[in-house]
Amino acid sequence: MSLGDPCGVGPELAAKAWTSLRDQTGFAFCVIGDAALMEAQGVPVARVTDVAETTAVFGTALPVLDIPLTAPAVTGVPDSVHAPQIVAWISKGVELCLEGRAHALVTCPIAKSVLYATGFKFPGHTEYLADLCRVGDVVPTPVMMLTAKDLRVVLATIHTPLSAVPMTLSREGLVKLAKITQKALVRDFAIPTPRLVMAGLNPHAGEDGTIGREEIDIIAPAVFALQNASVNIKGPYPADTLFHDEARLTYDAALCMYHDQGLIPLKTLDFWGGVNITLGLPIVRTSPDHGTGFNIAGKGIARADSLLAAIRTADEISRNRATS
Amino acid sequence: MSLGDPCGVGPELAAKAWTSLRDQTGFAFCVIGDAALMEAQGVPVARVTDVAETTAVFGTALPVLDIPLTAPAVTGVPDSVHAPQIVAWISKGVELCLEGRAHALVTCPIAKSVLYATGFKFPGHTEYLADLCRVGDVVPTPVMMLTAKDLRVVLATIHTPLSAVPMTLSREGLVKLAKITQKALVRDFAIPTPRLVMAGLNPHAGEDGTIGREEIDIIAPAVFALQNASVNIKGPYPADTLFHDEARLTYDAALCMYHDQGLIPLKTLDFWGGVNITLGLPIVRTSPDHGTGFNIAGKGIARADSLLAAIRTADEISRNRATS
Repeated sequence: MSLGDPCGVGPELAAKAWTSLRDQTGFAFCVIGDAALMEAQGVPVARVTDVAETTAVFGTALPVLDIPLTAPAVTGVPDSVHAPQIVAWISKGVELCLEGRAHALVTCPIAKSVLYATGFKFPGHTEYLADLCRVGDVVPTPVMMLTAKDLRVVLATIHTPLSAVPMTLSREGLVKLAKITQKALVRDFAIPTPRLVMAGLNPHAGEDGTIGREEIDIIAPAVFALQNASVNIKGPYPADTLFHDEARLTYDAALCMYHDQGLIPLKTLDFWGGVNITLGLPIVRTSPDHGTGFNIAGKGIARADSLLAAIRTADEISRNRATS
Repeated sequence: MSLGDPCGVGPELAAKAWTSLRDQTGFAFCVIGDAALMEAQGVPVARVTDVAETTAVFGTALPVLDIPLTAPAVTGVPDSVHAPQIVAWISKGVELCLEGRAHALVTCPIAKSVLYATGFKFPGHTEYLADLCRVGDVVPTPVMMLTAKDLRVVLATIHTPLSAVPMTLSREGLVKLAKITQKALVRDFAIPTPRLVMAGLNPHAGEDGTIGREEIDIIAPAVFALQNASVNIKGPYPADTLFHDEARLTYDAALCMYHDQGLIPLKTLDFWGGVNITLGLPIVRTSPDHGTGFNIAGKGIARADSLLAAIRTADEISRNRATS
């Protein structure tokens, strides 16, 4: 677990997660972060020099692979001085996964603005992780999946202004998204024959072109191309009828055209327990689906539901990969 | 109740609604439609010539104000030949409400394409109703509210292609929307001091302009103008965090920027029981939030949940108006 921004809720949630999970058998995690900061959270800390020590100590202390900060972290007050360590914690986590010394990486939230101030050049956490997984010039295409309760959504566009969403969509992009999603459902979620659905973009999925043409020009052709490539996918469907209890039983993942199309139903159904999963990478990566919470950090009120769900999901995916 | 398209689910749902409500005391409804078609639904029908007869007969037969079709209605097969009657049923309902002879109008679904073929010139049912309520040259501005469970949403844009939504929004339009909504919450829902929230348009409500500027340029100024006019409204808020159980407790209505922003949470929470309410008209008008269902009409499988909820909501609103 990379600790994320040391001034946010990461440290207290990592401590809460350990307290909640220490008696579990079957899996353990190690924090990659500042050991002194974790000691300040009021949990026993075991400084490890090798992640292989994690399992042995997890029942009695929170294992920490110590990469110390160079200045004190002030809770609730982000500071770019910590940027090199925040980045190093993430890259160390990816390295350990790529080397096969860790099964999965769970990342606590970062604030991009803190990192941009020191030259971080990626649109977000996910793109940085993909770059760390590059082989030569080839960077894998990461796909953002979010899960909560019985719903899995993947996003064709993420932090795109709504006005730019229509022009950002392409048939090729949707085809790639669906293929990565399908493979991940097989390998990571142990679903032998995944059922996918694709949402439309416009109200009533365009109503035969009378309320927008993207369904006709882009989305339906993508669905058709995928069906011809033997992907079990249907759509485009009106997004408002895609997420109720009975509808969710009919598919394993819904491909959404924009951020809120997927996130509104997900967070409406389960505000606290959402998990962000990066598909398409050689490593297993999950994260809570909330931000750094600078405004509530250190007050003891941050809820660990999402981080706990992210840890359990990472464990489940790594087991599925191991047996696939 | 205007019967809507006679080839859709309207007739069978009207019959189901009567069967379900006939033993209720306190309210009754009269179908404005084709009496022979209603008799064919297998319920006893009482032809009335005056809606005042409705209450007396409702316990034993479905009251119908007969405006007969000129050709047989074939279930599942829409036909523009019926357009004049479909339109006459609606206009008769509005007339009865404007005259004070009915408390409310519940409209069963119509198919616009059927009406367009004979010169109907309105974008939808709602705009036609507003026009019927015109006084001289002044047509009231109708606002579409949808309700289900404990959620009320109103839409700033309705059947607008997603790509046109950003350019369709205006500060003035949002201010008008909020003021109509506020008044309706007081008068129609008996909420003395309504709490409104306004959703953003972009992911994370634009994140301070880094993911779109509509919040800064249009939406926040509208909220500010409304607050200065003593409207209790907050926002713009990220849409994905606005609809979960705890969030819904904090407001009486959410103003949404586009169709699916409001309809996704509504139909995710309650797919079957949604109600469409037209605010801003002198008459009380509700309708089920589904379409004509030509593909399932006559099979006995259409669910009356939404129509029943629309009838109950119409009754509730008309009582609130009567005592306000």
